[in-house]
Amino acid sequence: MSRRYLNLTALSEALAMMRREFPSPGRAETVPLAEAVGRVTAEPLYAGYSVPVADIAKFDGYAVKSGETRGAQDQQPLPLAGYARVNTGEVLPRPFDAVVMIEDTWNEGGVPRIRKSAAPGQNIRRAGEDVRAGELVLPKGHRIRPFDIGALATYGIDRLAVRSVRVGIVPTGSDLVPLGTAPGPGQTIETNTLMAEAYLAGFGATCRRYGIVPDEPDLIREAVEAAVAENDLVILSAGSSAGTRDFSRDVVEVLGEIVFHGIAVRPGKPVLLANVGGRPVLGMPGYPVAAQTVLREVAGALLAGWGLEPLPGEELDVRLSRRLASDLGFDEFVPVSIGRVDGTCWATPHPRGGGIQMAVVRANGYLHIPAAREGIEAGEEVRVRLTVPPASVARTLVCVGRRDPVLGELGNLLAEAGYHLHCCNASTIGAVLALRAKTCHAATVALPETASAWSDQVLRYLPDVRLLRVPVARTEFGVASAGDLDAGSLASLRVVNRPVAQFLLDAWLDREGIALSPSGVPGDVRVCSALEARESGLRFTSIGYESCDLVIREEFAADEGVAALIEAARSPGFCAYLRAVGRDPGDGAADDVSSA
Amino acid sequence: MSRRYLNLTALSEALAMMRREFPSPGRAETVPLAEAVGRVTAEPLYAGYSVPVADIAKFDGYAVKSGETRGAQDQQPLPLAGYARVNTGEVLPRPFDAVVMIEDTWNEGGVPRIRKSAAPGQNIRRAGEDVRAGELVLPKGHRIRPFDIGALATYGIDRLAVRSVRVGIVPTGSDLVPLGTAPGPGQTIETNTLMAEAYLAGFGATCRRYGIVPDEPDLIREAVEAAVAENDLVILSAGSSAGTRDFSRDVVEVLGEIVFHGIAVRPGKPVLLANVGGRPVLGMPGYPVAAQTVLREVAGALLAGWGLEPLPGEELDVRLSRRLASDLGFDEFVPVSIGRVDGTCWATPHPRGGGIQMAVVRANGYLHIPAAREGIEAGEEVRVRLTVPPASVARTLVCVGRRDPVLGELGNLLAEAGYHLHCCNASTIGAVLALRAKTCHAATVALPETASAWSDQVLRYLPDVRLLRVPVARTEFGVASAGDLDAGSLASLRVVNRPVAQFLLDAWLDREGIALSPSGVPGDVRVCSALEARESGLRFTSIGYESCDLVIREEFAADEGVAALIEAARSPGFCAYLRAVGRDPGDGAADDVSSA
Repeated sequence: MSRRYLNLTALSEALAMMRREFPSPGRAETVPLAEAVGRVTAEPLYAGYSVPVADIAKFDGYAVKSGETRGAQDQQPLPLAGYARVNTGEVLPRPFDAVVMIEDTWNEGGVPRIRKSAAPGQNIRRAGEDVRAGELVLPKGHRIRPFDIGALATYGIDRLAVRSVRVGIVPTGSDLVPLGTAPGPGQTIETNTLMAEAYLAGFGATCRRYGIVPDEPDLIREAVEAAVAENDLVILSAGSSAGTRDFSRDVVEVLGEIVFHGIAVRPGKPVLLANVGGRPVLGMPGYPVAAQTVLREVAGALLAGWGLEPLPGEELDVRLSRRLASDLGFDEFVPVSIGRVDGTCWATPHPRGGGIQMAVVRANGYLHIPAAREGIEAGEEVRVRLTVPPASVARTLVCVGRRDPVLGELGNLLAEAGYHLHCCNASTIGAVLALRAKTCHAATVALPETASAWSDQVLRYLPDVRLLRVPVARTEFGVASAGDLDAGSLASLRVVNRPVAQFLLDAWLDREGIALSPSGVPGDVRVCSALEARESGLRFTSIGYESCDLVIREEFAADEGVAALIEAARSPGFCAYLRAVGRDPGDGAADDVSSA
Repeated sequence: MSRRYLNLTALSEALAMMRREFPSPGRAETVPLAEAVGRVTAEPLYAGYSVPVADIAKFDGYAVKSGETRGAQDQQPLPLAGYARVNTGEVLPRPFDAVVMIEDTWNEGGVPRIRKSAAPGQNIRRAGEDVRAGELVLPKGHRIRPFDIGALATYGIDRLAVRSVRVGIVPTGSDLVPLGTAPGPGQTIETNTLMAEAYLAGFGATCRRYGIVPDEPDLIREAVEAAVAENDLVILSAGSSAGTRDFSRDVVEVLGEIVFHGIAVRPGKPVLLANVGGRPVLGMPGYPVAAQTVLREVAGALLAGWGLEPLPGEELDVRLSRRLASDLGFDEFVPVSIGRVDGTCWATPHPRGGGIQMAVVRANGYLHIPAAREGIEAGEEVRVRLTVPPASVARTLVCVGRRDPVLGELGNLLAEAGYHLHCCNASTIGAVLALRAKTCHAATVALPETASAWSDQVLRYLPDVRLLRVPVARTEFGVASAGDLDAGSLASLRVVNRPVAQFLLDAWLDREGIALSPSGVPGDVRVCSALEARESGLRFTSIGYESCDLVIREEFAADEGVAALIEAARSPGFCAYLRAVGRDPGDGAADDVSSA
């Protein structure tokens, strides 16, 4: 049986229901100090004794009685009377009350001499100077930093109570195979629980991944029961949607009470929360980006409410580079690439599909469109959350337009120079408008090599802008065929989803004076790149070139990062790479083209 | 033999020498995906196949031939002719070319019906929509984030090459005992190597701690030789100074070449770098805060140069709340507490001693005073580096003045409310000036309970400022003695380092008409708190009270954090705590005192 969600709950309401239903289990565990970095203290920590325990020497030198050093002067050096050699950190021997640094003495006849009298207490670290017995060292709820470890060790704290949440993660799905297995037809690698563990471990949660459970209600029920018994939170991966093989709801309805099923959030809608024996069971959607949203916004919110802390992901106020529509009533999360262009931080969105993990891998942050908004306008100021350290935004180069695969290698070359290349897909006109609005460092445009394409598709939109055009790669297009080309075989030509190829084909047919019958049906003759024809072992008749160029505002070329991008695109290494992968280094375009 | 450093090298020069001497060892290791979070890719990662491999259904529903759905309308529903039930993610069966969502159908006589025709390709995820075979997934040098794990797993990457640096850490010192041992007289817990490991592991370095080596040159030499053979970097903890038991320099001079010994940095001056068989051996000072400086500024810089990345520690532009002097030619690092007061971020320094680890534990950042500066003026804008997530600065309350131990409990109560209380030590006048300059949220002043102290020591410096005075704790002072108090025993009275006690004593002696002989020498009669007298089992004659109050500008009281602080200080829980530790809850002062 299939079914719809009964109701979609608003995200804010869902979180409030969750918090009411599941107060903190308040669990703590004791861990050795060396394993405590990143964990959160469950109790305040107090110093067991004073540090230093007694007065100690601050420097290497001589312990002296200050009274006996009176009168020492530059003109009247004094040999030390009673003294003891002390090293840094040693307890000051009785009855001395000051230390003279070794640098301030010299030896004469085996006796150290001084030129300056010592003040009482000089160069001594007093008992308790660092910490006093019983003093608070760290409050409850403090996330332990690496250097805290040294202090805690010094104060004798070698084990400590930290907040502990046990999360059981149960993957369900008859199509799932474990990581490391090559998936057969219809099989999927089980990845979401690995990701959930990696993410929630960052909060300091103790995650346990269970074995894959096939889509059988009885087996899922057994797995949930076992996981609930052993954990504070159970995450059931996939099966919370409304398909014929989605049994999560049926199972948790038998074992406990549904808190909500379906929230108005995108991606992540088919999320399910149930109370099974007082513990939360969270049904997480199978689409990876939807799963991420649920991990962050729901599971993460629960753990934060229970006193754990996520790894820092800072917020930043930026401008949105192009309009984003969003359904009223839905909280939507969109992966974005953020870069600082000409002094302003711009966020450019990536595709929003729940299955497009590369969008999140490519992004350095994400934007939350609140439920009350129908969308966000281009140029509007928005707050984004970063998935990288804030400092890396300044070293991010945003390139908008055709995402040619060779840009990956350009990204590699830039990574060597310490820059991050973010390529955001856009049409030629999208790329040109980004150049015009100065929301990107560079655009990539792919144009047929004809006399008018550059001026028709680029320059006309950018009057009075001085542009730099750096060739990236050329692609030769042509007609691939098993046999000879003739009017009959050409009549069955097909061009799939490649406007430039269609453009070049039309121009070539025109030049060659060939008229095709309009009812041409798919056949063995197709228009493709020279590389594709070669790989298919087909004959190839060239019809022309497409060239993909980096287009940059000349005023930005002096920017250190943009200069590195240009240098990388022109480097012999990049040209060698292009040849190695069977692409032509671009050379059709002049390097410096201005429309002014 | 003791000796001075031959020369102090400037920090910038020392780092340049280090980088020249030790290029990256370029080592990589292969780790399972689940252990890769936080590591840095050693090579670019490419997708081994396209995802999805084939066209798949985007939603649960029915696979249809779009051509067969033509004509379906609201007024003219259509039963599906040929169709196949598909679940989200399933491969689209041949020969269907579209998917109708289950929500857009209803069953009638066992046949699903539709009200809208399907477009070709509708609700289908195309092969390669997420990633195409051979596409770059992550460039070299990318620090792996938790959600990258899911994508890499999906793309079949279950092991990957990450940058690897092996660091050997050798503790030296005959006075050292391992953590978990109670230190005897003259013994020190070995903590610096634990801290070094915790810090450098955050870069993704593989650290190995060796056993404690006593201060014997032969044993140290053996340990260094063994560590150099097994690691890319060896850190020799302590022994790089100029004391009689400091053998690091002698040992590494025999084994290799000194690169530098002593850098103009505070704390951290006695740092030593040597080249032993092409590998760096870093002598780290024993003072913990000096060791931290060397770990951050020297070892960390080396690892960063080798392509590892520290955990984020963001920079922030703030104003310095009070003047800091610094020696020209020395790079100095000062722990600071940063809080946002009245819209401006202020950094208040903590003590700079190399042994005061609590200063670093209490701080949420540190300030670098460059070698070229002789100091920084109060109010000057400076850049600090945070040791906490930037967002926590907004929840930090800075309190300047007397750091009474009971403030620790106030910090605990505030931690429950999500605020961080940072108490920075200052004299009464320092606290009052911080209130005047609005560089703190609150001040703590401890005053003798006399008619004029409040107006003499606080109000006169803050004319026209409306203040709120919240009692924190009272301390009763008196004369503690073994026997009866008489003129003879009073003559031997001593007051150690407690100006308020001295003040109260003088006032009491005056009231009682007792004149002491000025040559009173230390004896068995002393002025102390009632608690101290009780704990020592001595008789106690009260001479008066000191009261410690929180003083807050009334205009700040509405701030959410400041309100939480006031509420915590007035809470029954805090009063109960005070009584439990033998302190009086303050009640001598009016709650609301204005000088206007």
